[in-house]
Amino acid sequence: MEKLTVVKVGGKIVEETESLKQLLADFSQIEGYKVLVHGGGRSATAMAAKLGIESKMVNGRRITDAETLKVVTMVYGGLVNKQIVAGLQALDVNALGLTGADLNYMRSEKRPVKDVDYGFVGDVKEVNADLLADLIGKGVVPVLAPLTHDKAGNLLNTNADTIAGEAAKALAKHFEVTLMYCFEKKGVLLDEHDDESVISTLTPTLFQQYITEGVIQGGMIPKLENSFEALNAGVKQVIITRSDKIHTDGGTKISL
Amino acid sequence: MEKLTVVKVGGKIVEETESLKQLLADFSQIEGYKVLVHGGGRSATAMAAKLGIESKMVNGRRITDAETLKVVTMVYGGLVNKQIVAGLQALDVNALGLTGADLNYMRSEKRPVKDVDYGFVGDVKEVNADLLADLIGKGVVPVLAPLTHDKAGNLLNTNADTIAGEAAKALAKHFEVTLMYCFEKKGVLLDEHDDESVISTLTPTLFQQYITEGVIQGGMIPKLENSFEALNAGVKQVIITRSDKIHTDGGTKISL
Repeated sequence: MEKLTVVKVGGKIVEETESLKQLLADFSQIEGYKVLVHGGGRSATAMAAKLGIESKMVNGRRITDAETLKVVTMVYGGLVNKQIVAGLQALDVNALGLTGADLNYMRSEKRPVKDVDYGFVGDVKEVNADLLADLIGKGVVPVLAPLTHDKAGNLLNTNADTIAGEAAKALAKHFEVTLMYCFEKKGVLLDEHDDESVISTLTPTLFQQYITEGVIQGGMIPKLENSFEALNAGVKQVIITRSDKIHTDGGTKISL
Repeated sequence: MEKLTVVKVGGKIVEETESLKQLLADFSQIEGYKVLVHGGGRSATAMAAKLGIESKMVNGRRITDAETLKVVTMVYGGLVNKQIVAGLQALDVNALGLTGADLNYMRSEKRPVKDVDYGFVGDVKEVNADLLADLIGKGVVPVLAPLTHDKAGNLLNTNADTIAGEAAKALAKHFEVTLMYCFEKKGVLLDEHDDESVISTLTPTLFQQYITEGVIQGGMIPKLENSFEALNAGVKQVIITRSDKIHTDGGTKISL
């Protein structure tokens, strides 16, 4: 199978002109087939504020009422996505911006209300990757916005990490997939106060050991659990790295 | 060659929930391959106003400064386009929303400043329809937003009628294309005060005759001239009709 790299970048990097420019230059240098998944939360919050809509967050997730859904549809699906697509085209990367509604590539269901009513937020139920894989094979680079749909006419707000993980798993039937999560550190750190103490490789055994020793803790644990889940679902490798290192051989490599 | 219908609808119809619903139901009933091209000017004006940006129009065209470009990118490429795509998916139409930057399908150049500086408005220079035609042949229904790009990283605002005409002409190499322009009347009228006086067919000879007789005048003349230009460039037929008639055999049929 041919190699495919699915890169997820957070909002901050793609929302500022200079950092976006650098990211796209780095991304364009990744060899082989690739997919870019982006956030856009800061822009959505800023746009909502301009429109007099208050952004409510619970556990780091946005409460998406009807007005907020319009804002994220505009900002994620329009402004951020299309600026990335146009920027990549200028670098001769044949980008194609997509929400889950486009090509019906990712269907979700509105999250059931339990303790919290997240509103128009979608939990992914089905990924149709065949047509996507076909396009990728023709040299197209999908740029995925954090929006899905319920196949009943409604767009739904969906976490970009989830989009990246689900897309990577579905594309693993067609490609040898590396899933790359960018965050602000160079990788998973042995010592959180030492930015250079990057763990170069992580296996399930090492992961358990580091948890026991207290080296890995807090929010990094669910992030890594999701990574192992992706590996168990057929993704070849997960890399956690900093956005300016995506075209290099750095970061923490996670494999089974 | 297989038949393809390119339908252009104005902003008003796609911007109100009920009329959009009806339009998508009618559109979904068009047999064979199809493309939908939409406007969104009213929503853009309303969103600009909410954001404190004044909409300036000259000769019916929007002056697109940097802030207005962001608004139309959000509204045309995000809100309007993705709501249409999600609505079509609910009707089992495999829609794919596109700006000219996506797949680099339509490249334009910023309009030179002459009497008027239209700002970030693009004049179409190149249409790459091969990949689009390939997708259409696989059952995909492109939904085209009125945005193009300059292949140098900039999105540009482009009139939806122009997008429809240019897409139709380029796709005429691959399909037998009918280009359908929707407007508020049932077709081109013999008597502007009689909504039922629809001219059923129009040829270049009849067109000249009606101009001489004063039957066709004003804004309809450039619209029809554009239609004949599309026919001369390979489009099989142009139909001018009302949006609720797109799935019927009505309207004014224009051919050589």
